[in-house]
Amino acid sequence: MVKRTETKPPKGTRDFLPEELRRRGHVVGIIREVYENHGFVPLETPSLERLDTLLGKYGEEGDQLVFKILHRGAPLVAGIREAAAHLEGPGNVVVGRSGETAPGAERLLADLGLRYDLTVPLARVYATAQGRLPTVFRRYQIQPVWRADAPGRGRFREFFQCDVDVIGTGGPAVEAELLGAVSACLDRLGLGEAEIRVNHRALLSALTERAGIDPARSHEAIIALDKLDKIGAEGVRAELEQRGLAGGQALLDLVLGGPSLDALSGQLGDAGRAAAEELGKVLSLAEATPASGKVRFEPTLARGLGYYTGAIFEISHPGLDGSLGGGGRYDGLIGMFSGRPVPACGFSLGLERLLVVLEERGLFPPLPADADVLLGYGEAERELEAVRLAYQLRAEGLRVALHPKPDKMGKLKKQAMERRLPALVWLAESGPTLWRPEKPDAPAAPLSLPLAAALFESEG
Amino acid sequence: MVKRTETKPPKGTRDFLPEELRRRGHVVGIIREVYENHGFVPLETPSLERLDTLLGKYGEEGDQLVFKILHRGAPLVAGIREAAAHLEGPGNVVVGRSGETAPGAERLLADLGLRYDLTVPLARVYATAQGRLPTVFRRYQIQPVWRADAPGRGRFREFFQCDVDVIGTGGPAVEAELLGAVSACLDRLGLGEAEIRVNHRALLSALTERAGIDPARSHEAIIALDKLDKIGAEGVRAELEQRGLAGGQALLDLVLGGPSLDALSGQLGDAGRAAAEELGKVLSLAEATPASGKVRFEPTLARGLGYYTGAIFEISHPGLDGSLGGGGRYDGLIGMFSGRPVPACGFSLGLERLLVVLEERGLFPPLPADADVLLGYGEAERELEAVRLAYQLRAEGLRVALHPKPDKMGKLKKQAMERRLPALVWLAESGPTLWRPEKPDAPAAPLSLPLAAALFESEG
Repeated sequence: MVKRTETKPPKGTRDFLPEELRRRGHVVGIIREVYENHGFVPLETPSLERLDTLLGKYGEEGDQLVFKILHRGAPLVAGIREAAAHLEGPGNVVVGRSGETAPGAERLLADLGLRYDLTVPLARVYATAQGRLPTVFRRYQIQPVWRADAPGRGRFREFFQCDVDVIGTGGPAVEAELLGAVSACLDRLGLGEAEIRVNHRALLSALTERAGIDPARSHEAIIALDKLDKIGAEGVRAELEQRGLAGGQALLDLVLGGPSLDALSGQLGDAGRAAAEELGKVLSLAEATPASGKVRFEPTLARGLGYYTGAIFEISHPGLDGSLGGGGRYDGLIGMFSGRPVPACGFSLGLERLLVVLEERGLFPPLPADADVLLGYGEAERELEAVRLAYQLRAEGLRVALHPKPDKMGKLKKQAMERRLPALVWLAESGPTLWRPEKPDAPAAPLSLPLAAALFESEG
Repeated sequence: MVKRTETKPPKGTRDFLPEELRRRGHVVGIIREVYENHGFVPLETPSLERLDTLLGKYGEEGDQLVFKILHRGAPLVAGIREAAAHLEGPGNVVVGRSGETAPGAERLLADLGLRYDLTVPLARVYATAQGRLPTVFRRYQIQPVWRADAPGRGRFREFFQCDVDVIGTGGPAVEAELLGAVSACLDRLGLGEAEIRVNHRALLSALTERAGIDPARSHEAIIALDKLDKIGAEGVRAELEQRGLAGGQALLDLVLGGPSLDALSGQLGDAGRAAAEELGKVLSLAEATPASGKVRFEPTLARGLGYYTGAIFEISHPGLDGSLGGGGRYDGLIGMFSGRPVPACGFSLGLERLLVVLEERGLFPPLPADADVLLGYGEAERELEAVRLAYQLRAEGLRVALHPKPDKMGKLKKQAMERRLPALVWLAESGPTLWRPEKPDAPAAPLSLPLAAALFESEG
């Protein structure tokens, strides 16, 4: 007896068995179709990126969550020696929230990392391949990303994002198209009651300025405000006070009570008014898209990621704490790669969160069975005949699972029922027969070909 | 001006732009369809696996090629200290072919690795999920794998495999079904002239025994024999002599000149004859499948990977050095996870190699354009009308790319031609107009809806 080893997938990752995979395929298929319908084209990037590409884009906490790939060969040996020396240097070991970490040492041991999102790779690709892409590049990308985060409900270490971005131009029609595309996905999936909250980074800055908050600390105030959903107005007020942020109460007074964009705009300077006007145009254009009725201005929305510069979006749904997805304008990111600024805006749907809500609400349509026909035989000498018949049925377009060894008919009947397959074809001594799990008590009848029409007609 | 950073993807990896991705999608779509037609069901596994799962399955060289993920947090700090101490231990730094390496130290710094193939993860999943899977599990899996190998033509560090396996039963119908499925893929792709060479591990062992080779060194002889394709009979003879393998010439005499399975079988003992009989049944059943005429017995075929135990396969094509894919029976692998042996057999098609041959032979069908309609306008005040019209056309099922800013019609005409889009819809002052790149000299005419039928009828 060989030693039994751990067979569960690593923490925060999952094996997708066929049934689960068909559900995922259903959702991804709809999203891909909607994105294509909106004139977006596919892009895929490697799972591996240079650490130089990834780090410094997601904030310090994000950098820590990047999975890093160990150097290979001679650089690894040199790296270990340097890293060990580095650890002994004064103050070089950082004790962070999640325990002792060694970010400096990591860079000595690793050169590559796993993709953390789909936006930074897009920016890198655009910077390198711009000459081969249309001037306005509308791309979608549905791929996994990795974060060394604590797993939770609908939160994994390997998970899929469904991104859609427009690169190369500003203008409110871009934001409106993205809101429309994402809303069409939600509608098609049966999640039409989702809400998309929108805000604008420059508006947030103008509001903190108006409230008299020290510009050097406006980021702190915005982060506190972003927690309104979770900790309520009193919680935000307490946090602002605790941080000793002068102007915190004034900021809350400005944004609480659901002020309209116009009402806020009237109290702001030029930059704030310009941002409000821009956002107003987005909201008005969005009404001509499937986003109509879903979009709501929310002056407290901030979004964590560092790279947003203009409009920001976040999708919430009554069936889920946390968001189904989000996005915004990030006009500075591509310039970090290409050296010159390029306007860009995007939206990301979180596949795992969508699946959680769809599952809970029972919104999956009936999905196809594993196969159309299970084909079996009782004696080894019928093997060749079975293989021939399997290919005859496959030529009809049927998905045929040959049970590739002699077995008992009763056992295969049971299997066909358990797997909800439409038909069992059994090679009896007298010739091929057909038995249908939907009529379990009817005896197997002689099989007549072609089978496909008969099989799916009777279901109609 | 921001510092420009490296924007190419990491060594051995690729960005897939839309056109390339449509070609890949075409091939993957055919393979998926054929596998489903053969009654195989999809499976996907995480990119990350425990190093314990991966290492010790692919031989020493394979272990070195696994990309390893750096520990995080406190275990990393401890690992660096231990690894540095380990390096200083006598004889602990191994100098390998590719330079100085530190395999012992790696295990102190890393706990996870990237999937090296799709077979070991399948074995792990089967061991853990067997109770939820059919007794005979026919699964396919199309996902990337990673190897820290030297990149070359059609050889990458991140590349896709298209695997198909039958778990839970032996018997020649399994091998025949796999040969049939893979052959049907080759036929559908236009690669029908590919050849599948087959052999049997137990037959190879019996042949080395018959040649009088020391059983402890039979592996060396088989590895040498496997190079026949590349270095010819004289090269193999030289290598066998150089290694001082008594019986090397006898082995060559047995297998050269294309002996039939029967002719060889007659010269072997019980184990060898049983293997030959098993392989004979596989070959005979395969004739009733799309593999008919493609399969050839090749007594010198060995296949590198350690886990094969029975029949082995390898696909070659006149358009490519090296193989398009391969596989075989590996009855021992699942037992390494579950503690009890489970019969298993599989085949893997290499997507990147298939693409190389298809590209060279010009075997891609015309692939769909990026979008059906490019929609543009000249003045900002037509923005709302443009968004509305985009959604009207999308509701017809057309894939509509809205150019989301005012621009010049001439520029969009040029773009529609370059991207080979079927139509440009232009919002003129007088109303929407239609211009078709296929008739570049015809003026834009008033647009009449619905458009879809008119657009695709005229192409017929």
